[in-house]
Amino acid sequence: MVNPIDPTATGFLLAENRNMPMHVGGLQLFEKPEGAGRGYVREMYEQMRDVDEIAPLFLKHPHRSARTAGQLVWRPDEQFDIEHHVRHSALPKPGRIRELLELCSRLHSTRLAWERPLWEATIIEGLRDGRVAMYTKTHHALVDGVSAMRLLASVLSTDPDERDMPAPWAMRPGAPRPAADGASPPSLGDVSAQTVRAALAIASEAAGMPGALVRTLNRSVRNETSALSLYAPRTILNQNITGSRRFAAQDWPIERLRAVGKASGTTINDVVLAMVSGAIRAYLLELDALPDTTLVSMVPVGLKAKESQLASSDGGNAVGSVMVQLGTHLPDPADRLAAIHRSMVDGKQGLSSMTPTQILAMSALGQAPAILGPALRMSGIVRPPYNLIVSNVPGPRTTHYWNGARLVGTYPLSIPINGMALNITCTSYDGKLCFGLTGCRRTVPRLQLMLGHLDAELRALERAAGV
Amino acid sequence: MVNPIDPTATGFLLAENRNMPMHVGGLQLFEKPEGAGRGYVREMYEQMRDVDEIAPLFLKHPHRSARTAGQLVWRPDEQFDIEHHVRHSALPKPGRIRELLELCSRLHSTRLAWERPLWEATIIEGLRDGRVAMYTKTHHALVDGVSAMRLLASVLSTDPDERDMPAPWAMRPGAPRPAADGASPPSLGDVSAQTVRAALAIASEAAGMPGALVRTLNRSVRNETSALSLYAPRTILNQNITGSRRFAAQDWPIERLRAVGKASGTTINDVVLAMVSGAIRAYLLELDALPDTTLVSMVPVGLKAKESQLASSDGGNAVGSVMVQLGTHLPDPADRLAAIHRSMVDGKQGLSSMTPTQILAMSALGQAPAILGPALRMSGIVRPPYNLIVSNVPGPRTTHYWNGARLVGTYPLSIPINGMALNITCTSYDGKLCFGLTGCRRTVPRLQLMLGHLDAELRALERAAGV
Repeated sequence: MVNPIDPTATGFLLAENRNMPMHVGGLQLFEKPEGAGRGYVREMYEQMRDVDEIAPLFLKHPHRSARTAGQLVWRPDEQFDIEHHVRHSALPKPGRIRELLELCSRLHSTRLAWERPLWEATIIEGLRDGRVAMYTKTHHALVDGVSAMRLLASVLSTDPDERDMPAPWAMRPGAPRPAADGASPPSLGDVSAQTVRAALAIASEAAGMPGALVRTLNRSVRNETSALSLYAPRTILNQNITGSRRFAAQDWPIERLRAVGKASGTTINDVVLAMVSGAIRAYLLELDALPDTTLVSMVPVGLKAKESQLASSDGGNAVGSVMVQLGTHLPDPADRLAAIHRSMVDGKQGLSSMTPTQILAMSALGQAPAILGPALRMSGIVRPPYNLIVSNVPGPRTTHYWNGARLVGTYPLSIPINGMALNITCTSYDGKLCFGLTGCRRTVPRLQLMLGHLDAELRALERAAGV
Repeated sequence: MVNPIDPTATGFLLAENRNMPMHVGGLQLFEKPEGAGRGYVREMYEQMRDVDEIAPLFLKHPHRSARTAGQLVWRPDEQFDIEHHVRHSALPKPGRIRELLELCSRLHSTRLAWERPLWEATIIEGLRDGRVAMYTKTHHALVDGVSAMRLLASVLSTDPDERDMPAPWAMRPGAPRPAADGASPPSLGDVSAQTVRAALAIASEAAGMPGALVRTLNRSVRNETSALSLYAPRTILNQNITGSRRFAAQDWPIERLRAVGKASGTTINDVVLAMVSGAIRAYLLELDALPDTTLVSMVPVGLKAKESQLASSDGGNAVGSVMVQLGTHLPDPADRLAAIHRSMVDGKQGLSSMTPTQILAMSALGQAPAILGPALRMSGIVRPPYNLIVSNVPGPRTTHYWNGARLVGTYPLSIPINGMALNITCTSYDGKLCFGLTGCRRTVPRLQLMLGHLDAELRALERAAGV
C-alpha cells in the first residue's frame, strides 16, 4: 500500500542534506504529579512507548518506488520498531537547564532516516529540580512545526486528575480517524508548507495581480517600510550552514510584555520583535558584526477568517508574512520598538489591501528563495530576502496535564537553512511566552548569549515604557 | 595548509552513505578510584575536554578543494570546537548495562560530519554500579578500529597512582610528534586499510603469482576448506543495511576459553570462533533462517614477522585473512569446534605457502568486494564472499588506569556494510576476552540475544571438553 508524496512534502525531503536536516522539534517540560515514585520517569516512558496502535501518520516512511520510476511514495513501515522512535535518556549531573539544552542541541543535529517513519521522541530524566522533559522531532514532510506542537498539545488535558491518556502518536479511539492511506492530518496553520504550496501552485493566479503587489514592490524598491523586503543587509546569519545545531530556550511572563505594549501603544507581538531586535543588536555588536542598516525579519501573520475568502483546503487559517524592519541600527530600545510597530502596521496594511490569494503568493515570493533555494541546490544566497524568521504562535492559555504531569513550558525547535542560520519561534502557554532559538552551531556561535540579551532587552523596554 | 587524502582513506570517505557510516567505535568501562567524590565524572569529563593542545590527527577534517578540482584534502579545522567532540552524557535509571548498550547503539548510528574533525568521545555517567563509561567514535579514514582502540589504550598507565595523564586526543609532550601536516600516525595493525591498499596498489605484483593462489582457488572451487571462500551461503546477514545500529557487548574470562582449548587440542581463537558459530546457529535457528551449509567467516590473522618478509611500510605487522568454515550446520558443539580448528589450520597452511605479498593480495581479493562494493555504488551482493567478519585482537594483559580510574573492560564497535550486516570483534584485556557485536538494527533483529547464546555455547563447549 503506497501513496505518492505531495509536491510540498517531496520538496522538504529533497531539500534535505546532511548540513540541513528538515525536521522540526519541540521541548516540553513537565512537573511530576504529587506522590510520583522513584520510577516515575520510566513509567512515563513506558506509557509513551507501549501504545496499542500507532496513528498512520507515525507509521509511514518515504520510499523511492522503482515501480513508479523513482517517484517518492509513502509506505507503511512493515517492521515498525517503537523503541527506535520512543527513547529514554538522562542528563549528566548537575542536571541544569544548560545540560538539557545541550542534549536537545545534539538530538536536533541528527537526521531522521528515510527507512523509518520520520519522527522520534525522547523522554529525559535527570533535571535537578525533578522536572521531566520530552524532546520530539518530526520531519517537515509530515507536519510543520506549529502543527507538530499542537499535535503534542492535543493529547493534553486541563484536568490534573485525568489518567489513561494516550501518547501523541497513539491512534485515538475518539478522534477522527486519519485516512487509512497514511495521509497527513489536517494542517493547523501550516505556514511554510502553505507558502511553498502557494509558490508552486498558485503562481498562475498570482501572476495576474498587478495592483497591490506592484504598489508594494514600488514602495519596497524605494526602501520604505513594506510587506516585501528587497533590502536586507548581509549578516553572519546569512551564510551556508553546517549540520550541527545549538538550541536555546527561555520563557517570560506574558504580563510583562503586555504591560510594555500597553504603556507604549504597541502589541505583544511588537514587544516580542523588539526583544529579538535588541538581543540581536547586542549579540552582533559583541561579535563586531552589526550592519549599518536594519536587519529584516520575516514574520508570519495569521489572516482572520473574515478578512480571508481563501479558506485553506484543510480548514486551517490562511497565513501571510510581513517583512519587518527590526531597527537594529537604532541605539535606543524605545526607538526600536516604535520602528517595529510602524513597520508592522505598514506591512499589514500592504497585506490587507490585497486579495488573500495575492497575499499568499506575495508571501511565497518572499519566502520561496529561502525554502526552495536548497531544493534547487543553490549554494548561498547573494542577497538575502530577509535576515531571519521570527514566528510567534499562540498556544493554550490554561494549565495542561498529561496523566497528572503538569506541563510547565513548551519550546519550539525549528529549521535553520542555508542563508538563514537562525530561527526564533515563540509560543505562548499558560501565561508565559516561551522562546525557542535554533541556530547552526558553527555559523551562530554562542547562541545561548541571546537568552541574556533577550532578558536585558525586556528590562530595558520596561524602563523605557516606565512600567 | 591542506594535504591530499590518501586513496585508502578517500575510499572510506566516499564509500560512506547515510545507511553505512564508516566509523569505528570503542566502549571502555572504568571503575572510579577510591575516594572519588560526587563530582568525579564531571571532573573526568572536564579533564578530557580541557586539553591544552589537540594532536593534529584530531584537528583535521576532509574538504573538497575547488583549487584541486574537487579532490579530497585534509584541512585543519580553523574553528575547532572541543565541546562538539568531547561530550558528557548519562544513562536513565536503573542504569544497567542494557541502558548503556542502548545509548552506545544510538551514538554509533549517527554519522560524523565532514565539516569537523572526524571523531567524538562521550563520557557516560549513571551506571548503577558506579562505574563510568566512555564511548569513542573515529572515522575509518583517520584510523582503523584496532588502531583506534590501541590509541585509546596508549594513554593508560599500569600505575594506579599516576595522575595528570593526558586525554587520548591531547598532544603528548613525550610522544613522537606527528607530522605537522596532520597525517595519520603510524598504523598499528591496520587490517582493513592494509588489505584494501593491497587490492588497490599491489595488484600488479599479485597479478604475477600463479602458484599458491591458483592451488588455493582450485581447492576452493572444489569447496574444500581453504583460505579463500567462494561458497558462502546467503543468509539474513548478507543483505543491504540501514543506518541504525545495535551494539551488544560482554566479556568472559580467557582462562575458561584456554581450558576448553587445552582439553580439546584447539586454540583460544578456535574457541572464540566456536562460541560465535554456536551462537549464530542458535540465533538463526530461532529466526528459522539457518542455511543447510556452513556459514563462512573472514578471520584476519597476523603474520609473524619472521614468516613475513613484507614489512608493512610503517612497521606494523602484516595481516592476512583466512576464510573459516564455522560448521554452523553441525548440531554438536564439539564437532563445530573440531571443524573450525581444521578449517583454520588448512587456511593458515594455504597462507603460509605463499609469499607475504601474495597473501596480502589474496586476502584483499576476498575482502575487496565487501569494502569496495559500496564505494563503487554496487547495491547488494549476489553471492557473499563470506557471511561475517570475526576479528580477535590481542590487547593489554595487565590492569591499566587513567588518572586512577581502573579500566575494567574495553569493547570494540565496528562497521556493518551492505551485504555484511554483522561484525564481531573481540579484544583481550586483563584476563578477559571482551566481545563487541555491531549489527544493523533492522537486518539483525534482537542482536542482544546473541550474548546469551555466546554464554550458553561456552558452557556447552566446557561440558563437551569435560572441563
